[in-house]
Amino acid sequence: MTVFTFLDYAAVFVFALTGSLVASRAQLDIVGFCFFACLTAVGGGTLRDVLLDRNPVFWIETPAFLAVACGAAVLVFMTAHLFESRYRLLLWLDAVALGVAVAVGSGVAQSLQHSAPVVVVMGIVTGCMGGLMRDVVSNEVPLVLAKGELYVTCAFAGSLATVLAGGYGLEANLAALLCALVTFVLRAGSLAFGWSLPVYKSRPPKV
Amino acid sequence: MTVFTFLDYAAVFVFALTGSLVASRAQLDIVGFCFFACLTAVGGGTLRDVLLDRNPVFWIETPAFLAVACGAAVLVFMTAHLFESRYRLLLWLDAVALGVAVAVGSGVAQSLQHSAPVVVVMGIVTGCMGGLMRDVVSNEVPLVLAKGELYVTCAFAGSLATVLAGGYGLEANLAALLCALVTFVLRAGSLAFGWSLPVYKSRPPKV
Amino acid sequence: MTVFTFLDYAAVFVFALTGSLVASRAQLDIVGFCFFACLTAVGGGTLRDVLLDRNPVFWIETPAFLAVACGAAVLVFMTAHLFESRYRLLLWLDAVALGVAVAVGSGVAQSLQHSAPVVVVMGIVTGCMGGLMRDVVSNEVPLVLAKGELYVTCAFAGSLATVLAGGYGLEANLAALLCALVTFVLRAGSLAFGWSLPVYKSRPPKV
Repeated sequence: MTVFTFLDYAAVFVFALTGSLVASRAQLDIVGFCFFACLTAVGGGTLRDVLLDRNPVFWIETPAFLAVACGAAVLVFMTAHLFESRYRLLLWLDAVALGVAVAVGSGVAQSLQHSAPVVVVMGIVTGCMGGLMRDVVSNEVPLVLAKGELYVTCAFAGSLATVLAGGYGLEANLAALLCALVTFVLRAGSLAFGWSLPVYKSRPPKV
Repeated sequence: MTVFTFLDYAAVFVFALTGSLVASRAQLDIVGFCFFACLTAVGGGTLRDVLLDRNPVFWIETPAFLAVACGAAVLVFMTAHLFESRYRLLLWLDAVALGVAVAVGSGVAQSLQHSAPVVVVMGIVTGCMGGLMRDVVSNEVPLVLAKGELYVTCAFAGSLATVLAGGYGLEANLAALLCALVTFVLRAGSLAFGWSLPVYKSRPPKV
Repeated sequence: MTVFTFLDYAAVFVFALTGSLVASRAQLDIVGFCFFACLTAVGGGTLRDVLLDRNPVFWIETPAFLAVACGAAVLVFMTAHLFESRYRLLLWLDAVALGVAVAVGSGVAQSLQHSAPVVVVMGIVTGCMGGLMRDVVSNEVPLVLAKGELYVTCAFAGSLATVLAGGYGLEANLAALLCALVTFVLRAGSLAFGWSLPVYKSRPPKV
């Protein structure tokens, strides 16, 4: 098992936790939990595989990914009520999954010899799109619209780290670790300390 | 014409009826009706074909599916005002389409020799995703979020029936019939008698 | 550079402007602007390429499209506050992009010898789906639901013009120009003069 395979399972598991938490907020039954777990967990990677024309899609080749996602759903179904704030938990788990998924996505694109912009986009797609599908389908405000927080920016920075690491000849596993760290640390800083970029001001004050 | 071809047309027609009913609730013009009819009718099957890398996608190979969907749109445009409750009608038509589409989707995946989990997922994708796209685009609350009702569960049970029927060597046409029946009967029971699975309780009472 | 290549860049640029305007209404940071710019700009064409199984997808083959979209995002980030009504601006830019994208989409499908219905659908997909993704992700009311206005209808008419022009042996570049004009003029007439088709009336008065 390569580090990418392991990271892929890890991202699927943690994203599945966030999907299940959304299902718990919507008070669905266990099948609804599994649906949101799978949608969130494999959504981004599926889009990446379709765009890169990788056949078969990763979870069709290895259905164990679906089992992992459903396992996460069952776990959350039985334990989510133990947590004080499920939304806060969701945000932090999503941050972990984001880091891991960006590393997987940009790493996969890089291993297929794609150009730097495509590597960056695939990192963002793999990292952000599963969560985006979860939010759109469940009618929650998408995290990519988070005001005054970093979100897509973290995925962008992480993917960029992969590209730079590749350019400097860093070994792929280390590059993936670096990418995941950059992404997660930025997102964590944004959640914990309010790190952000200047946002667009809708209208300057009249002088 | 095999039974699958016939079922595919039937699912497209009935899903197109539901898409048109949503367009009628949004008070669109006839082209809007056709847009929602086609989106709902071919959305799930298109996603299935893209995921399974079937080329060309079914309605690109046979554009008659689009004609059937647009025919359903015209029919609804002229008659929907005759119905007392269009939302109730939408729910029941959606239940029929769900049953048929799950049978088609899981049957297609099975005929391509995919593994059991992939067969189950393709049944759910074909059955639920067209309606999900309809609901997300039209800003209606997605039926997959239906509280205290079975929805994805019905698709799951139907797909499972396909897998089991295949395992016991049942002929493919009979397996498709069985799958459609299981899916529809469960969904109908949920709509008519309130059948449901236990839902997640957000917080247990403090002891 | 063929006329299609030029039109493709033009559609990407103008759609990116509309995506950025939506980002400005949501008060995102510059990376959020680029995200919405790229999603809107390449969303429809990406779906077209995936459905037609064109590999690689156009912006993976030519990442310059992404640079153009991000350039539009930076432009809007710096200037959008200069405009009186950003939503009005968004509507008109979207009309221009719609016209160009429909011409590109239907032209591409026609050059691949697809049947007339598929040519029409690919015009609509390329023209409408990027904007639809922008609206769905940003929680704005989708323009395809615009009440008492033409939207999908314009794309439909433009695509039809491509098919007819092809049938009469019109040269492909002229056909694309005709298609873009038909689409834009109809949409402009709808925005400026309220052109519309009769909409569905929810219930006739009781007699």
